Amino acid sequence: MHSMWMAELAARSELPVATIKYYLRQGLLPAGEATGATRAVYDEAHVRRLRLIRALTDVGQMSLETVREVLAGIDDAGSVHDAVGSAHTRLGGTPEEPASDAALRVVADLLERHGWELAPDSPQRTVLARALDTLVGLDFPLTPEDLDGYAAAMASIAPAEVASVLADTREETAERAVIGTVLVEPVLLTIRRIAQENASREVSS
Amino acid sequence: MHSMWMAELAARSELPVATIKYYLRQGLLPAGEATGATRAVYDEAHVRRLRLIRALTDVGQMSLETVREVLAGIDDAGSVHDAVGSAHTRLGGTPEEPASDAALRVVADLLERHGWELAPDSPQRTVLARALDTLVGLDFPLTPEDLDGYAAAMASIAPAEVASVLADTREETAERAVIGTVLVEPVLLTIRRIAQENASREVSS
Repeated sequence: MHSMWMAELAARSELPVATIKYYLRQGLLPAGEATGATRAVYDEAHVRRLRLIRALTDVGQMSLETVREVLAGIDDAGSVHDAVGSAHTRLGGTPEEPASDAALRVVADLLERHGWELAPDSPQRTVLARALDTLVGLDFPLTPEDLDGYAAAMASIAPAEVASVLADTREETAERAVIGTVLVEPVLLTIRRIAQENASREVSS
Repeated sequence: MHSMWMAELAARSELPVATIKYYLRQGLLPAGEATGATRAVYDEAHVRRLRLIRALTDVGQMSLETVREVLAGIDDAGSVHDAVGSAHTRLGGTPEEPASDAALRVVADLLERHGWELAPDSPQRTVLARALDTLVGLDFPLTPEDLDGYAAAMASIAPAEVASVLADTREETAERAVIGTVLVEPVLLTIRRIAQENASREVSS
């Protein structure tokens, strides 16, 4: 594997050396291989990891603390399913307020209708239920039919999405799971807005 | 229509009076109807507007400056299509860096394949192209087939989404277009994560 000094790592990742050293001190980036008292060499995995950190902070608008938790999940993952689940658990965050019982019931029914399971400690139930509560508070309740429409649309793309993150190593698969989840979101949401604009033209005319 | 004093407006919107007065001074909330030198009454439209501001800042994580631009779009909208387009234009923001020609070409081809049009000044082309550039930089390029999958999924739900924002008044329709776009996003993205977790279980087992 191609080895490089810090200067090349900075050039390849488009990050200042001072920033990279900060990430090393903070444990966000694994240490390089020491080649003397004060020198170390780095490899492609370091470049990949730095680009991921940059994308998560820039595009994903994550704090370094959240990035650290997401990366910890990557390094712990034992399987593709673990990698995806662990990334999602940390990306979901912990809702600050509890969801209503009514919304949690709607979510449980949705999961049951689609034969979906979630890890017992998954925050997704509460995250989704809280989002539904917010919409109810704005007089914009979603019906079970609305949710089924979203579920069918997401189920139609999920197998291809999961296949696209598979890589040679477990670590790289976990990194790709994070990229595929967080950094593809702007693509999906922008295409949604374009589709809505075009559907609204038909209503207006 | 039910009229109310400031105290009731604060209770109904769950916002402190000082915050509401700040929004009034900043022009985020239309003035109430004056009933004396120092008193004014408010109505349901004020309650709705305050709940929307709160949701956009809390859930949508928007700055007050962005909220102001989104609300300006609501108040200018002439039709459902205008309301949706105007909300999206302001929500999309202005990308700070230009997109690559290659990515803009991919977006133009996507729009053409799906028979989709966009307003000439729509930022969505550049927003989408920039997101694609980011993914290429992470060795996670999306293929035209990937994009077609997302486009088909979003086209399948767009007509119902547009229908769900229609309301009695133009202003309320525009407000609902913003809610339906921004505040339904967490619902869609969480359901996507749940669908991915379940699809990844089948890969792992």
